[in-house]
Order: sequence, then C-alpha cells, then structure tokens
Amino acid sequence: MTFFTKRYHPPGTPPGTLTQMPAEEAMPLRIRLIDYDKDKVTVKDNVEAADCHAFLASSSSTWIHVQGHPTEAALRELGSAFSLHALALEDVLNTGQRPKVDKFDDQLFIIMSLPTIEEDRVTIQQVSLFLHKTFLISFCVGDFAPFEPVVRRLQAEGSRLRSRGVDFLLYSLIDLVIDQGFPVLEDFGLQLEDLEEQILESVGRETLHRIHTVKRELILLRRMLWPQREAVNQLLRGDYETIRAETLIYLRDCYDHTIQVMDLLETYRDMAGSMLDIYLSSVSNRMNDVMRVLTVIATIFIPLTFIVGVYGMNFDRTAGAWNMPELGWPFGYLLIWVVMILIAVLMVVFFRRRGWF
Amino acid sequence: MTFFTKRYHPPGTPPGTLTQMPAEEAMPLRIRLIDYDKDKVTVKDNVEAADCHAFLASSSSTWIHVQGHPTEAALRELGSAFSLHALALEDVLNTGQRPKVDKFDDQLFIIMSLPTIEEDRVTIQQVSLFLHKTFLISFCVGDFAPFEPVVRRLQAEGSRLRSRGVDFLLYSLIDLVIDQGFPVLEDFGLQLEDLEEQILESVGRETLHRIHTVKRELILLRRMLWPQREAVNQLLRGDYETIRAETLIYLRDCYDHTIQVMDLLETYRDMAGSMLDIYLSSVSNRMNDVMRVLTVIATIFIPLTFIVGVYGMNFDRTAGAWNMPELGWPFGYLLIWVVMILIAVLMVVFFRRRGWF
Amino acid sequence: MTFFTKRYHPPGTPPGTLTQMPAEEAMPLRIRLIDYDKDKVTVKDNVEAADCHAFLASSSSTWIHVQGHPTEAALRELGSAFSLHALALEDVLNTGQRPKVDKFDDQLFIIMSLPTIEEDRVTIQQVSLFLHKTFLISFCVGDFAPFEPVVRRLQAEGSRLRSRGVDFLLYSLIDLVIDQGFPVLEDFGLQLEDLEEQILESVGRETLHRIHTVKRELILLRRMLWPQREAVNQLLRGDYETIRAETLIYLRDCYDHTIQVMDLLETYRDMAGSMLDIYLSSVSNRMNDVMRVLTVIATIFIPLTFIVGVYGMNFDRTAGAWNMPELGWPFGYLLIWVVMILIAVLMVVFFRRRGWF
Amino acid sequence: MTFFTKRYHPPGTPPGTLTQMPAEEAMPLRIRLIDYDKDKVTVKDNVEAADCHAFLASSSSTWIHVQGHPTEAALRELGSAFSLHALALEDVLNTGQRPKVDKFDDQLFIIMSLPTIEEDRVTIQQVSLFLHKTFLISFCVGDFAPFEPVVRRLQAEGSRLRSRGVDFLLYSLIDLVIDQGFPVLEDFGLQLEDLEEQILESVGRETLHRIHTVKRELILLRRMLWPQREAVNQLLRGDYETIRAETLIYLRDCYDHTIQVMDLLETYRDMAGSMLDIYLSSVSNRMNDVMRVLTVIATIFIPLTFIVGVYGMNFDRTAGAWNMPELGWPFGYLLIWVVMILIAVLMVVFFRRRGWF
Amino acid sequence: MTFFTKRYHPPGTPPGTLTQMPAEEAMPLRIRLIDYDKDKVTVKDNVEAADCHAFLASSSSTWIHVQGHPTEAALRELGSAFSLHALALEDVLNTGQRPKVDKFDDQLFIIMSLPTIEEDRVTIQQVSLFLHKTFLISFCVGDFAPFEPVVRRLQAEGSRLRSRGVDFLLYSLIDLVIDQGFPVLEDFGLQLEDLEEQILESVGRETLHRIHTVKRELILLRRMLWPQREAVNQLLRGDYETIRAETLIYLRDCYDHTIQVMDLLETYRDMAGSMLDIYLSSVSNRMNDVMRVLTVIATIFIPLTFIVGVYGMNFDRTAGAWNMPELGWPFGYLLIWVVMILIAVLMVVFFRRRGWF
Repeated sequence: MTFFTKRYHPPGTPPGTLTQMPAEEAMPLRIRLIDYDKDKVTVKDNVEAADCHAFLASSSSTWIHVQGHPTEAALRELGSAFSLHALALEDVLNTGQRPKVDKFDDQLFIIMSLPTIEEDRVTIQQVSLFLHKTFLISFCVGDFAPFEPVVRRLQAEGSRLRSRGVDFLLYSLIDLVIDQGFPVLEDFGLQLEDLEEQILESVGRETLHRIHTVKRELILLRRMLWPQREAVNQLLRGDYETIRAETLIYLRDCYDHTIQVMDLLETYRDMAGSMLDIYLSSVSNRMNDVMRVLTVIATIFIPLTFIVGVYGMNFDRTAGAWNMPELGWPFGYLLIWVVMILIAVLMVVFFRRRGWF
Repeated sequence: MTFFTKRYHPPGTPPGTLTQMPAEEAMPLRIRLIDYDKDKVTVKDNVEAADCHAFLASSSSTWIHVQGHPTEAALRELGSAFSLHALALEDVLNTGQRPKVDKFDDQLFIIMSLPTIEEDRVTIQQVSLFLHKTFLISFCVGDFAPFEPVVRRLQAEGSRLRSRGVDFLLYSLIDLVIDQGFPVLEDFGLQLEDLEEQILESVGRETLHRIHTVKRELILLRRMLWPQREAVNQLLRGDYETIRAETLIYLRDCYDHTIQVMDLLETYRDMAGSMLDIYLSSVSNRMNDVMRVLTVIATIFIPLTFIVGVYGMNFDRTAGAWNMPELGWPFGYLLIWVVMILIAVLMVVFFRRRGWF
Repeated sequence: MTFFTKRYHPPGTPPGTLTQMPAEEAMPLRIRLIDYDKDKVTVKDNVEAADCHAFLASSSSTWIHVQGHPTEAALRELGSAFSLHALALEDVLNTGQRPKVDKFDDQLFIIMSLPTIEEDRVTIQQVSLFLHKTFLISFCVGDFAPFEPVVRRLQAEGSRLRSRGVDFLLYSLIDLVIDQGFPVLEDFGLQLEDLEEQILESVGRETLHRIHTVKRELILLRRMLWPQREAVNQLLRGDYETIRAETLIYLRDCYDHTIQVMDLLETYRDMAGSMLDIYLSSVSNRMNDVMRVLTVIATIFIPLTFIVGVYGMNFDRTAGAWNMPELGWPFGYLLIWVVMILIAVLMVVFFRRRGWF
Repeated sequence: MTFFTKRYHPPGTPPGTLTQMPAEEAMPLRIRLIDYDKDKVTVKDNVEAADCHAFLASSSSTWIHVQGHPTEAALRELGSAFSLHALALEDVLNTGQRPKVDKFDDQLFIIMSLPTIEEDRVTIQQVSLFLHKTFLISFCVGDFAPFEPVVRRLQAEGSRLRSRGVDFLLYSLIDLVIDQGFPVLEDFGLQLEDLEEQILESVGRETLHRIHTVKRELILLRRMLWPQREAVNQLLRGDYETIRAETLIYLRDCYDHTIQVMDLLETYRDMAGSMLDIYLSSVSNRMNDVMRVLTVIATIFIPLTFIVGVYGMNFDRTAGAWNMPELGWPFGYLLIWVVMILIAVLMVVFFRRRGWF
Repeated sequence: MTFFTKRYHPPGTPPGTLTQMPAEEAMPLRIRLIDYDKDKVTVKDNVEAADCHAFLASSSSTWIHVQGHPTEAALRELGSAFSLHALALEDVLNTGQRPKVDKFDDQLFIIMSLPTIEEDRVTIQQVSLFLHKTFLISFCVGDFAPFEPVVRRLQAEGSRLRSRGVDFLLYSLIDLVIDQGFPVLEDFGLQLEDLEEQILESVGRETLHRIHTVKRELILLRRMLWPQREAVNQLLRGDYETIRAETLIYLRDCYDHTIQVMDLLETYRDMAGSMLDIYLSSVSNRMNDVMRVLTVIATIFIPLTFIVGVYGMNFDRTAGAWNMPELGWPFGYLLIWVVMILIAVLMVVFFRRRGWF
C-alpha cells in the first residue's frame, strides 16, 4: 500500500506502547558509534547499547546512528540506555510521522523526511534525531543509509565538523536530509520537460498516465516536505539551549533551502496541472481534426452515392417517355460523371473556404 | 437524510431548552460508573444519577459514561445531579455539533466527533465530555460504545491510567476518539488505491459513482474533523486548571495526531479530485479510440460503395458507345475489384501513417 | 433585479441623507412598543414615536419594534426621538447592507441578515438593531415579522427573558436571526440529496438548471451570512458596556451557531460543485454509450451494404467468363448470405471482445 | 492597449523624473480654486499656480482641483508652488498607479481609482489627492470631472461641508470616488442577469464572448479596487494629525462601502465563473441532443438500405431455384415493405424505450 | 533545462563549498571599480581584487561590480579581500536562488532576480549585492549588464546619486532591477491582447501552444518575483544601520513597485487561465458547428438514398401485379423525384426550425 503509509496502534492503546514489527519487514539492525573531538575520531560498527555508556559520559561529542528497523526489545533497551522519552520512541517505531520538533526535558526530538527517487517513484524514509548536550542519536529506518558523506567528513583530518559540537552535527544531518530534496525535484523537472515535449508530439494513453503519476507523487511528496519547513523554522525560533548561536546562522541557510524546495514543488504542481489541461485539449484537438476530415470525406460522397443510386432504379423506360430518358441518351453516362465531379469539386471548395479541412 | 445532520430547535426557542427525541430513535440508555484510584477500581453498570453522588464527593477519580440517546427527563436529572450548564446539555442532546471546547465556571465541556466507517460509508457519532476536578462525565450517542479499551486499561492492575487523575483519563478518551480517524482514513486509502487500479483497467459508470461517493464522504468527514484540531489546540493553549502540566505533554502528542489526520484527509481530497480528472480523460480517450476506428472503417467503405453504385446504374449501353462501355469489357469486373482493393489499401496506409488508427 | 440588492445614493450625496422609498414598495409601517420588567409586561401596537418617550425614560426595559419600510419622515422623527445617528439611519433605509456592528457614543448599532427560503429561493431581509442602556429599537424591513416567538416568550409569566436586561433581549433577537439559517440550509440539504438521486437516475436539462440555481443561491446567501459571523465575534470581543458578562456566555453560543451555519454552507458549496462535475460526466457517459452503440450498428452494416452493392453491378456476363460468374452459380445467392452473416457475426464478436458495446 | 495601463519610466531613470506626455494625449488643463469658510465661498476657474499663494496662506480652507493631464512644466510649477514631493508628482503623472496612502512630512498623498462604465466597458481614472493642514489639492486625469456634486454642495448655503475643515472635504471626495463603484457594479449585476436569461434561451457565440468580457472586466476592476480598501483602512488606522477624530467616523462609513464594493465584485466573479460552466454544459447538451436525434435517424435507415440493396442484386434466377426466389413471389415486394416497416417500428420503439430520442 | 534552474551541491557537501563552474558556461569575468564622492568619480575597468583595497579603506563611496560567472578561485580571492561570508559566496555561485536579504555581522547580503524577455521567453539573471558602510559589491551573473544607466548617472556632474551614500546606490540598483519587471509584463500584456484577438478570429494548434507558453512563463516568473517583494519589505522594516532614514522613503517607493508588479502578474495569470477556457469552448463550438452541418447534410440524403435503393430492386413485375407496379407507371420516375424533393425540403425546414443549422 502506497497511499496510507502511516503506522498506528489500534485506537485505545496506551501511549508509549512499542509494537514489534512483523518479522518479514524487519531488517538487520546496525548500530554505529562515532566519538570525536578536535583531535581524534573513534568509529565502532555494530555496537550494543550497553557499550555506549562510557562514551556518552565523556566530554567528547558522540554520535550513535541506528540504521534499519529496530525490534521492540532493541528499542526499549536503547530507550532506557539513553533515557529517551516513551512517546518519542513510539514515533520512531511507527514510521510515517510528519516532520516535527518536540522537546522532552533536556532532550530535543526531531523527525525529518528523507525523500529518494527511483524510476520516477518517490520513497520517503523517516529520520529521527535525538539531540542532547554532548551526544546525538539518529535513527534511519530503511535500506538506504544517507549519512555516509557526513561520516567521511568527520573522519577527514581538520574538518570544521570535528571542531564544533553535536549541534553542528545535527545541522549537517538536517542539511543533508533537506538537500536530498533537490535531486528529487530535479528528476521531476526533467520528467515535466520530457512530458511537455511528449505532449506536443503525440498523445497516447501512457502520457496521461505519466502526468497523473507525477501529480500524485507531488501530492504525496508535498505532504511530507511541507511540515519539514515548519520544523526547521521551529528549531530557528525555539531558543533551545542545546543549539548554539553560531549554528543558527547555518540553520537559517537550511531554512532557505526548505523554502526553495517547497517553492519548486508548488511550481511543479502548477505546471503539472497546466500540462493536464494542455494534454486534454491536445487530445480533443487531434480527435477533432481526424473526425472533421473523415466527416468531410463522407459528406462529399453522400450526394454522389445518391446520384448513382438514382440511375440504378429500374423504372420501365418503355412505359412512358418521362421514365428515366437520361439512361437512353448517347452521352448520359459521361454527363453524369461530369455532374458528379462538379458537385465533388464544389463541395471541396466550399469546405476549404470555411476552413473545415 | 445524510447531508443535514444538525439537530436544531425552531428559531426563537429559549436557550437551554431540552427537546425529547422522537421515540423511534431513542435507544436504551446505559449509565456506567467507574470509581478508581491507584489501589482499587469499582465498576457499576446501569446506575441511576442519584447513586452517583457519594462517588463524586469522594476524593477518588470517578468516570460516569452515558451510552445512548438520553431522554429529556434523564438528561435534566443528570444535569442537576452533576450541575452541568443548560447550554451544554442542549448541545449534548442536539447532536451534529462541531467539536469545540467551552468553559463554564469550574467545568470544562468538550465535544468531539468519533468517525466510524462501515461498507465505505462514514458515520459520525458525537462524544460529549464534562471535566471537573475529580470526575469526568462522558456522553456517547449511538450504538457503538468506543471506550471499552480504556475501561479494560483501567481495570488492569498497575496501569498508568489509574495512578493519574481524571485529566489523564480525558486525554485517553480524546486520544482514542482522534486515533479512530486512522482506520477510517486507511479505508479511504485502500478505496483510492482500488479506484486507481480500476480506472486504468476499465471505465464504467460505477467507477464514477464510487469516486463521487469518496469525494462526498471526504467532504462530510472534513467538516467534522477540521474543528477537532482546533479544539485540541484550545485545550493545549487554554491554561485550564483542571488539566495538569504532565498531561499536556500527552495532549501535544494528540494534537500531532489531529494534524496527521487532517493532512491525510487533504491529501486524499486532492487525490480524489485528481482521479476524477483522470477518469474523465480516460473515458474520453477510450471513446475517441472507438469512434476513430469505427469512423475510419466507414470512411474506407464509402468510396467503394460509391463505385459499386456506379456500375449498378442502368444506362442503356445500346444508346451509344460511351454509355458504360466498362460493363462490356471481358475483364471489367476483375478490374473494378483491383481498383477497389487498391483504393482501400491506399486509404489504410494513409490513415496509418497519420496515426489515425 | 435579484443580483444587485444594495440600495445606494447617487455618488456625491451628502452623508446621512434619507431618501424616500418609491411609493409602490412602501408597506404599512407598524410600530410596537413592549415595556417590561420582572413583574409586568406592557404591549402597545401601532404607537407613534412621540408616545414612546415616557417609556424610554423609565428604568424598566423597553423594546420598540418597527416592522415594514419606514417613510423618510417617520424615520427622521424616530431618529430625533431616540437620538439615533444619521449615518445609522441611512443604513436602515438603504437596505442590502452587510451585517456589521457600529458604535455611536453610548449607542450600539447592529445590522443582521435574516434569510428565509420559499420554493427554493432565498430572500434576505435586513434587521437593524439599536441597543441603549435601557431600551432596544429594532427595524425589520419586509413582510415577514420574525420576532413573534420572542414576543410570546416575553409575555410568558416567569420567563428568564423578562428577568434580564435589554442586552439579553438583544441576544435573543440575534440568536433567532442566526438560527433562521438552519431551516434554510436544511432546505438546501434536502435539495442536494434530491439532486444527487436525480443525477443517478436521469440527466435532463432541468437538472442542470437546478444545480445552477442552488449554486447561485448559495453564493448570494454566503455573501450575506459570512459577515454575520464577523459581526457576532465583534460583539463578543468588543467590550461594550451595554452588554453584560452573563450575556456574553450566551452570545458565545450564538457565535458557535454562526460558525456551524458557515460550515454547512461551505460544505454544500463544495457538494454542489462536485455534483456539477458528476452531472457533466454522467451526461457525457450517457451520450457516449448511445453514440457507441449506434456507431457499432452502422459499422456492421457498412461492409454488408458494400457487398450487396457489388452484386447489383451490371457487368455483362456474356462479354467474358470473368464478369461476375458468381451471379450464375446455382447457390450464389445463398452463399452470399452465408458470407454476410459470417462477417456480421465476426464483427459483433470482435466489438464485444473489445468491450465496445 | 487595455491590459497594461501602467505608465513607467525606462528602468534606471532617476527617481522623481517627470516625463512629458505625448502631445496627442494631452488635454487642456483646467485649474479651479475654491476658497471657503463657514460664511463665504470663492470659486475661481482657470487660475494659475502663482495666483494661489495668497489663498493657501490664509486660515480659510482652500481646495485646488486640477482636471486633465498636466504638462511636465505645469506640474513642476505646481509642485514647487505647493511644495509637493517629487516622488508623489511622478505618481501623479505616471497614471495607472495602485490606490495608496503615502505620508511626506506634513503632507498626506492619496491615490484613488475612479471607475466609470460605458457600454459595458470599464474605464479607470486616477484621482490624486494632497492633504495639508488648511488646503487640499486634487488631480483628476481624464475627461470626466467627477467632483461637480461636491462643488455644488460647497456652494449651497449652510452646508455641513463648509463648516468643517479640509479633512471633511477629503472624506467627501473619497466617498464620492468609492460610491462610484456602486453604479458600475449595478451595471455588471444587470449584465449578469441578462446573461443568465440569455443562456437559458439560446447559446450563440456572442454569449460566450460576453461572459468572457464580463470576467475580464471584473478581473481588471478588481485589480484597481482591491487596494482602495486597504488605502481607506490605512487612513482610518494611520493616526494622521491632518485628519480629525470627527471625520474618522465618516471615513469608517466609507470603509464599509469599500468592503461592500469588493464583496459584490467577488460575488459577481463567482457568478460569472459559474455561468461559464452552465454555458459550456448547455452548449454540449444541445449539441448532444442534435447529434443523438440525427444518429438515431441514420441508424434506422441503415438496415433498410441494406435490405433494398439485397434485392437489387443481379443473381441469375434461371441458374438455380435458390437464387433469389423472393423476386418471383407474387407478393414479394409487398412483403419486403412489411418487413422494412416492421424493422423501423421496432427500432423506434427500442430507441424510445432507452430514452435515446 | 529550463524548469529546474537551481544549482545545488550533492547533499552532504560541507557548507560554504565553492564549486568551479563547467568550463563551457564560464564567461570572461569583468570587474569594474567606481570610486566617487560629491566632487569626483574614478572608473576603473578590469581591475583585480588586490587593486581595490586602497579604495575600500578611503572614506569615499566605492562600488565594485562583477559581471559574469566568477571562477572558484576569483570568488575565493574576492571573498577574502572584502571579507564576504562563505555561505553568501556559495549563494553567489549557485545561481537560481530566491531573492532574499541576509545579514552577516556588519554586511548586508541581498539577492535579487532580474527578469529579461526576448522573443516572449523570460530569462532570470541573479543579481547579488553586498552592502557595507562605505562600499557596495554587486555580482551579476550573465551576459546582460543591466547597470549601465546607473553608471551614466554616477558620471553625470551634480547628480543626486553622487551626493548620497552607497545605500542610495543600493536603492538605485534595486529600483532598476524591480522596474525591469514592467517592460517584461508589458510584453505579456501585449501577448495577451494579441492572443485574445487571435482566439476570436481562428483557433489553431499554435494558439493553444502560445497560451500554454504564457501560462508557464508566468508561473516561472512568479516564482522568482514573489519573494522579491518580501525581500524589499524586509529591507524597509529591518532597521539596518547601513541604510539611512532618507533612503527608506525611496525604498518604500520601490516596495510599491514590487506590489504593482505582482499585481499585474496575478491579473495576467487570471487572464491567461480565463483565455484557456475561452479557447477551449471556442474550439468545441467551432467543431460542433462543423459536425452539425455535416450531419444534417448526411441525414437529409439518408432517406433519399433509401428510396432510390427501393426502385433499384429487381422484383419480377411479371410474377404479380403487386410487384413494384410503380416502375411501370408512365410518370413514376417524375413522381419519385417530386417525392424526394418534398422530403428533402421538409427536412431542411424542420431542421432550420429547430435551429440545427
């Protein structure tokens, strides 16, 4: 199912309930820990929640990234290990949430939507981020691990990322998630240009289908990206003590990007709508042309067929001089051809004049 | 009548008038009293208003749930027993109200809309809630008793619900009412997916009817759910002394859900609109294809029929050498077939080239 | 004229000019005075402006209701008798005003729109109200006297209305005017249900006309009722000393009703729009069905007619053995029937398979 | 050119540049000076800028009205004579400005749009007003001199206008300009009623053209009148010392009128849109009716023509007993007529039953 | 590619990264330095970044204009020379940004969109402006150098521009960029007038294409100009110390112009939409006319062709007296002509009466 991607508990479930995912969907869980300060970086793959405590307590910045759909037990363990709020954990598990920012005590909880496009079909992965004073925990449900570029930047010697705190790391992750919207929209831009050309050349059923798909995907994309803008704005205005002033200037740049993304999206929606109009009138124009030409042809032959019908009648010429004397004229046959050609020519001229074909 | 579901008094009726429902609609009234604190739970079914006083006076939390359409007398009795405001009681009786929050002295009056769906048809039940310091009174008009899950949670030993006050119970009821929107929208999501497939396969009249029904149901649903969001927001911002700060964090989660519900609803409305467009153009496309093929067939036969008509004419070949000499040629008949086949082939080629069939 | 119902002076007329209505429109003016307090009620019909002074000066509540189109002179007299502002009087006379609240010194001037429906056609009557500390003057231009229920409630012994001030009377009148919207909208609801059924059954020209009428009436109704909501809201928020706090709780209920009215109106507008779409596609569906069946019939007969034309040609069978030998076969005629039936059957099968009829 | 009526300088021109109008557009400039107080009025036509100084310096109120398109030199002279700001003078000359209020030191600069309608075509004249403490300068570009009624009121003995300051004169001029919207909209109301009737009676090409014209004129009108409302609101809220409190009560009335004008305009736009829908479906309904009847006629004759074709075939009845024996039956001809009439009747009945004609 | 004109880095790139443009796009970079005060102007073309330091340090106003796409190295050099913020430089390079105002320390960074139109196709050039206390740096990417008029005004002796600071220069540049919208919109106005005439005269495919192009260009233009209004408003309200109060009065005029531009744009969008409706109904009207006339012609001949078919049947007149005796009547042939002409005339009259052709 594509249209309804929100997971939810049966109404009446206690708040904060964590429900095990059906087994077939669960993917192997990978937890990666990165502990860094200006001077050194430690990367540990496939750690356990218990292994992290030492790093969290230290004054260096720590980033724990959980990739894949966590099991209920794993999430509960992570939750108690890092003291994450039950309502937030529920949202991590029940993917399909709207982007938002929530504050639980000294912990900032952020949900973002990461769009990816493959063969003109948009997929939205949910990214959940917990920001504390000295550590950041990120959850990304799905196959696609988007944060590799940031990991590489962290590992690069002398990177600005390393010399700043976890709030700058948070910015880097959010920036990456938002900028992911540009290639997706670029793909839509290309599709629309392609469609525009296609409409001018020929109008088949698959054109209609494609316009419809673009419109539907844009509607779905809009639903997930619109609140993203609001969420980043909330981060900017929220005056959270875990985000430093020098990071805000970068988040403002981020906010600009969300506006640009929404702007493009709305423009494309307008265009897709406009293209449907053009498609429909192109189809009807083309149909009209065909029908008009064919009808004109038919109309030209109708009186001619009548005339030859007349001279196919079997009136008894011997019964009276007025019974079809034409049939007995020496040049009757030629005359009738002349008459018919004349009629045809006159009709063609008349129809042409009125611009009917 | 489905479109106009608002009950109202004749204009000019004094405010707070309670009117008896017509007998055939009235369902048996069931009043259930649940008195609870951390340690014990008392559940009494089918109590009378008079029996409740002792419980209301106690310091333990008390929940009185009234299921079914109350008679005028019963409501008046309940009203005076629990000192409910006359204007609020009027709204309990006149169902079809918009969700809202009203404050009468120390009493909070909340109206919610509980949507249920059966065979793709949405029904809205009105839920009315009165919140006092130590007790909560809920009215649910209709057959469907939605609050059983909460009753079970209350009866469960050590449930968080029991250790908190009636404001948390209020949250639990509101949460349940709002989350009821998800299965309803899931049903719409499935219908839309189903419709989308149906449109691509075939276009019958019942498809149009279904799209129309979905659109209409979404319009009606929207009318009742939109103000729900506003009402929950008012609870969040209202600074009511009967709602404690620790409950607000849960209500905020609730508010998120109302936004998600509206979001989905708007998305589905967009999609239903877009589907109607696609349906219409599919129908016209299909029609055009049929007509074009048929017209092309007709157009090919028109000149042929004319030709055979020509040689059906009865010109007197003995009257002159120019009168239809073709009829006397030994291979005239074969020749005419060759000519006709040639014309047909040329026309087919011409029409194919121009992509007319 | 229905679309433009605003009376106005020629541009450049001094403000506060009162213009005499054309004689044919003027209806007999009826002025009724009701003076009441908790203990007694005095009702006087057809009073003169001069008779009212004694009552206005008294401490009891006084309600003067003017029904019908006042003449210029009468209005001027009333105006000076009760010291009403010239700009307000101008608005009383120039009906077709938007609902609004104006404050002139200690006098509150309120314009309301009273909708009535008759044979599916909406009429709007203008109701003008002046509220002072101890008296209320109401003007209702038109035949329909809406305030009889309130008069009866005032006359009833022990009515709440009598024990409260003129601000509660003001609320009662406004409430009545607003609640008048419900029966009007109920009528529209019934019309829409009726139309929906009608569309599914048959599509005639009068259906289109009815949809159009409903849409137009809803547009006109909306124009007058939308500002009503704003006006009541202004009364709620305006902090006017002539309206007491205990009346505000009732006005809030009133405001709820205006929202419900607008809500229903917008829903019905959406539905009427949606119905037009359905109507149009139903019409085109039905037309398509007819045309497709007829065209298929024609297409089946076209090759058959060509074949019988072929054997109606007069080629001279004696001129050569190849000239239409079929005509001389003993079973030629039967054979040709077999061939034609075969062609017809094949075409029917082919068209059925492709679902063309 | 009608769509683009904004005059503008080439980009990069210094601010405040005054450009001479092309000579053919320039109309003779008429400057009229009116100096008045409670007791006396002086009216001077065709004055020069230099003549005005004495009046401006006096304590009496002075109104200078400039009618027609001023030349660059005249404007420059007026500008320096009355110390008007260069940017404001630029806007006086470059007509097609949006209505607005600007404040330059102690001088209030107001631009208004005066709509006039002639033969269903709207023209917008720009009115520019400068308000000082004791004098008001008005510019009206165009032939139509709208302010004659105000001049007559000023000359009338004992008029309220004379006893109040120039701010009341300002109100009177603005009120006149705004009220000019009512006759224009009344004209549109009449056009729409006319169109509605026309649509129900017949559908020709000129109907479509008229609907289009109404829609376009309303779009253009809306563009100029919408900011007018904003401008009057700014005067009301702006707390300008040149406008006295007692004049504000009148301006509030003015503001009400701008709302009513916009209200009507939006309603008419809705109606024109709705009318286009109705027109389109009427056209297609009518076309469908015609086509259906004609196609039914054709379909009835198609099998009949086939039958007569069959008996026009020339099979050799002497070659075998099965070759068209019907031709030799004594009542064959009559029989065939009976068969054909039967077929025709059956088809008519069938088509009628299905409601196809 | 036209639809997606936003340059962006791959998601995950560090903020402030400058990427070299692909070589083929890079145009020769021209840097021009203008140093001026009230008394003298120095203009230097093709300066290097290093040459500018002396001028920047001086108290005179300095304007450095960079025309063309800067290379990464050049930009980096300029950036460090004038201490421009890295995030701002990134936006200068990644053209296709939305207009905006950003503040970095004592430096104001403004992005504007300069529209130009050529052969009815809009191009948007990005203009980036950095305002310091005593100098202004402007970047204009693209071939078209728009600021020549301002340069000429600066060089003119005694120009107001020279006697004011760089903030007035900033205003002059912004004013020029915004006023550039007027000729562009004038072009659209002309196109729309042209289209309106074209629609009334004839309806071809290229008309549809033009309407579509206008709509699409307006959508794209709107996307870039809408935020321009917001940006200028931010300059007005932002209370920036680098912009003096006397310049604000001019910027307010600028803001008026952005509103006028958007106003016209929205009006044209409405009109283009309305024109598409008219086009579509014109096409369908015209088609209907053609089809109706042709179908009427066909329908008239159908019964006639049937009649001549009847008398082409070969019933054996010798087999019985009832077998087609008409064929033997002396005036049978004439009679049949009379009958056919009668039928034709009756049908023509009937169709005319019902207004079918």
